[in-house]
Amino acid sequence: MSSKDVTALVIGRFQPFHKGHLEVVRTIAKECGSIIVGIGSAQYSHTPENPFTAGERYLMISRALRDDGMRNVHIVPIPDINRYSIWVSHVVSLVPPFHVIYSNNPLTRRLFSEAGYKVKASPIFSRELYSGTEIRRRMIFGEAWTQLVPSAVAKVIEEIGGLERMRELGTTAPITRYANDDSDGSGSQP
Amino acid sequence: MSSKDVTALVIGRFQPFHKGHLEVVRTIAKECGSIIVGIGSAQYSHTPENPFTAGERYLMISRALRDDGMRNVHIVPIPDINRYSIWVSHVVSLVPPFHVIYSNNPLTRRLFSEAGYKVKASPIFSRELYSGTEIRRRMIFGEAWTQLVPSAVAKVIEEIGGLERMRELGTTAPITRYANDDSDGSGSQP
Amino acid sequence: MSSKDVTALVIGRFQPFHKGHLEVVRTIAKECGSIIVGIGSAQYSHTPENPFTAGERYLMISRALRDDGMRNVHIVPIPDINRYSIWVSHVVSLVPPFHVIYSNNPLTRRLFSEAGYKVKASPIFSRELYSGTEIRRRMIFGEAWTQLVPSAVAKVIEEIGGLERMRELGTTAPITRYANDDSDGSGSQP
Amino acid sequence: MSSKDVTALVIGRFQPFHKGHLEVVRTIAKECGSIIVGIGSAQYSHTPENPFTAGERYLMISRALRDDGMRNVHIVPIPDINRYSIWVSHVVSLVPPFHVIYSNNPLTRRLFSEAGYKVKASPIFSRELYSGTEIRRRMIFGEAWTQLVPSAVAKVIEEIGGLERMRELGTTAPITRYANDDSDGSGSQP
Amino acid sequence: MSSKDVTALVIGRFQPFHKGHLEVVRTIAKECGSIIVGIGSAQYSHTPENPFTAGERYLMISRALRDDGMRNVHIVPIPDINRYSIWVSHVVSLVPPFHVIYSNNPLTRRLFSEAGYKVKASPIFSRELYSGTEIRRRMIFGEAWTQLVPSAVAKVIEEIGGLERMRELGTTAPITRYANDDSDGSGSQP
Amino acid sequence: MSSKDVTALVIGRFQPFHKGHLEVVRTIAKECGSIIVGIGSAQYSHTPENPFTAGERYLMISRALRDDGMRNVHIVPIPDINRYSIWVSHVVSLVPPFHVIYSNNPLTRRLFSEAGYKVKASPIFSRELYSGTEIRRRMIFGEAWTQLVPSAVAKVIEEIGGLERMRELGTTAPITRYANDDSDGSGSQP
Repeated sequence: MSSKDVTALVIGRFQPFHKGHLEVVRTIAKECGSIIVGIGSAQYSHTPENPFTAGERYLMISRALRDDGMRNVHIVPIPDINRYSIWVSHVVSLVPPFHVIYSNNPLTRRLFSEAGYKVKASPIFSRELYSGTEIRRRMIFGEAWTQLVPSAVAKVIEEIGGLERMRELGTTAPITRYANDDSDGSGSQP
Repeated sequence: MSSKDVTALVIGRFQPFHKGHLEVVRTIAKECGSIIVGIGSAQYSHTPENPFTAGERYLMISRALRDDGMRNVHIVPIPDINRYSIWVSHVVSLVPPFHVIYSNNPLTRRLFSEAGYKVKASPIFSRELYSGTEIRRRMIFGEAWTQLVPSAVAKVIEEIGGLERMRELGTTAPITRYANDDSDGSGSQP
Repeated sequence: MSSKDVTALVIGRFQPFHKGHLEVVRTIAKECGSIIVGIGSAQYSHTPENPFTAGERYLMISRALRDDGMRNVHIVPIPDINRYSIWVSHVVSLVPPFHVIYSNNPLTRRLFSEAGYKVKASPIFSRELYSGTEIRRRMIFGEAWTQLVPSAVAKVIEEIGGLERMRELGTTAPITRYANDDSDGSGSQP
Repeated sequence: MSSKDVTALVIGRFQPFHKGHLEVVRTIAKECGSIIVGIGSAQYSHTPENPFTAGERYLMISRALRDDGMRNVHIVPIPDINRYSIWVSHVVSLVPPFHVIYSNNPLTRRLFSEAGYKVKASPIFSRELYSGTEIRRRMIFGEAWTQLVPSAVAKVIEEIGGLERMRELGTTAPITRYANDDSDGSGSQP
Repeated sequence: MSSKDVTALVIGRFQPFHKGHLEVVRTIAKECGSIIVGIGSAQYSHTPENPFTAGERYLMISRALRDDGMRNVHIVPIPDINRYSIWVSHVVSLVPPFHVIYSNNPLTRRLFSEAGYKVKASPIFSRELYSGTEIRRRMIFGEAWTQLVPSAVAKVIEEIGGLERMRELGTTAPITRYANDDSDGSGSQP
Repeated sequence: MSSKDVTALVIGRFQPFHKGHLEVVRTIAKECGSIIVGIGSAQYSHTPENPFTAGERYLMISRALRDDGMRNVHIVPIPDINRYSIWVSHVVSLVPPFHVIYSNNPLTRRLFSEAGYKVKASPIFSRELYSGTEIRRRMIFGEAWTQLVPSAVAKVIEEIGGLERMRELGTTAPITRYANDDSDGSGSQP
């Protein structure tokens, strides 16, 4: 099979999509004919760790890749299923057919290997710098962050009021807390 | 709109409903014509943090408010949905129409604001004293707690054997632990 | 009712089924006519705490008990339901009718007692030695573990490549982590 | 136990709450000290058979009973669980403790009987006339219907634009149909 | 691989387990070393089509096969997942490893074939006579049915009051019907 | 707002994506700057009404639109949620922000209208000819169908063995039927 006939899958949370992610997609795109970008944890949003909806993340990725001149990219939201024995089937049913998955996560690698898929290591770029955790931290504390994401992503975050949302949520607890209720708010994490 | 035509929503876990909660409801009731009390985390019970079922909490609140002479109160159990992008719709479909929500929780405030609802700060009363966490701790360790809840609540807890339940559950771990099994009991928290 | 007409239920995660578990089943089998072994947390697998699928655990238990000459044992996978108010009904609907449950877990004991079932303490055997946590730790770090499980269990683990799976998963994080993504990987633990 | 200490449970869909329902509640209220009205199929709305949300039905019932001078009524939304072996536990966890359930449905009667509850036949009033099906049909086809429901219910339906909603939905099919798609629309009824 | 090393899987609803089912299991058992009997639609019970719980069906099958002298049978309840793209993974995670599935259902055959499993036709025995539908019909209408099931099954049905349950449920409608509510009872079948 | 800044949403099941669908997307694309194509009933596949997975449908649409020279299209799988009060929030969280939805389905129109969205009628093209139902019927019965779909779609169906799948499934019943089991197969439709 010629490399231009190969479709590759990469999965991330992209909270938000940053320059490290972009570099990974670029590198894989050179090795493969087309690429599928799976947006993991698609059902979550509005928390400090997962501030943006799947649709908002879709728009960030779509615009950043278009600006980069990339073609043949499929973007697919993938809700989490925390029952790992069926996770591969779940992913496979949601995305177009693919030939190889790029991942450095041991569990992802193991599950796709057990299911008979070809697994490759994902390239890594300045992980300390290009880190979703670090970018979210900077956004909450008002430090410089826009240089760490593609300009299209910074623009989407501005359009949707993302910075304001993150600062309000800040170090928020689950929603069942109450004026005179418990500070642990363990309601939504049974 | 006259204040007597305004319906307000407040949401809490009420594990159990205490005098701080009662004071909040009283205060809001003075500002509004009717009030909806949403029982959050309705699906949980029998844990140290969520000892009482939604039905038991419903009875506590109902009797406490009746004893207090309050009218025009709607009590509604609301199961958690930990997908925050649909949480407002979920709440709205379960409770009668309302005009304002009282909350101090940043996430609740943000979600209802994004959905276009009017959000007000909830009044706060001696939060250190009237705290579900503190009351549950006292119940487990046999310290005085009845003075912190309306007398109707203490009576309901007695009727349902709530004190005995809390002491048995104490610092209990999830249910899949076994005589000769792991002490972490991580089975039910994947 | 004669003891030979009594059916007993025991529930564990059995990750993996070890000699302590076997001893518990043997002891209960002497007191009852037949025994039901419920495999808890049936939906989980491929994590450091729950490495084996329900089906793999079923095979371990089945072969170990057959080698031991045990008869009249029913093995039933039981998925977790973290809504404890319906957990007893859930278990009861999945397993054959039983007369008594053996458990040392306070929550299990409380829930079955509230539902009117007879609850007995489960016998305990060298808990420090025969512990799933300890056995899984030894498997990951390459220490001796086979002497802690029935030989049939060691053989099943070998057949399914269980040791290799555990070492690869090791101290793995959830699957939504990405080459250039966050190290907390909180995506799948909302 | 004196009849005034007895709490009764009745469950219906109340699409909408009509005079037949009101008569049933009145009759039971005379026999018992307090009554719980469970709003079944709470999660459904916006279909020809289930046009109103649980919250809208809650308001209809609440106002109709208040106008009727009834006290000691608890209204509780109950989502369907189509796994009947756990349905009784599900209901019991959501509503305040009760002593008897009134129902004419064979399945409801059987399930609560098997679980050890006292079951009584529900009184019946002019079933041909006071029927949700008939009232919904009249609403869709523009025939007279307001005389079949308490006046408070007609007023709530007017406030929420219920008649307009029903006429628009009319004989609607599931939502995944498309301009040039299938007429069967079987997408949402797998 | 010798036939005695082959493990076969068969799946049915077994409402109830009848002599046709027994004959199928016997025939497959002659061709294979061990056999897994999957109890499909495990979550359903108490309806005319699915009267018995998974646990009750487990007991029927277990006793009938024991009476027949069969060894090396694994019985596993399998809840339905009506998302067919993940159904094979779901089944595979719940049952011990197997080498071949026996089925005449086109969907089951197709799904396991697409997943790379060996599929064989299931033997058929007097299908008109040995039919769950026919047996359930006879039970409801008081006609002779015990000769169509293994004697152990008839005994289990007697022990659990199964005949009484079926006659009460008879032509029952969903549970949200109400004395003065709709005759269609469409609440629980949205 | 200039028409080139408007993003439109259309939702269909696309089983399969045919020339009528293509014409709809083309027409809307002329009126708007960008278009989101939502793949409804995303979780279903392998049935006569929903033969193709969401991923397979994604590939059909993606290739057909690329061949057509269309740009600025976002394709998003959307699983059904049959709780209509939260369906709009569900859709909104999965797709990029949009300004108008095109639909002729009364329920979709009503739900988005109630939520405050702008709704337009979807254009219609030769509905008798370009119909998913008709195309699937032709595929099963071996009649000519390729002229009704874009050539890229016919090619995808060939690559994935779609015709063979549809013929095998044909008039298939749910999967819990068994050699000697019921012909109604009501197991998976409780």
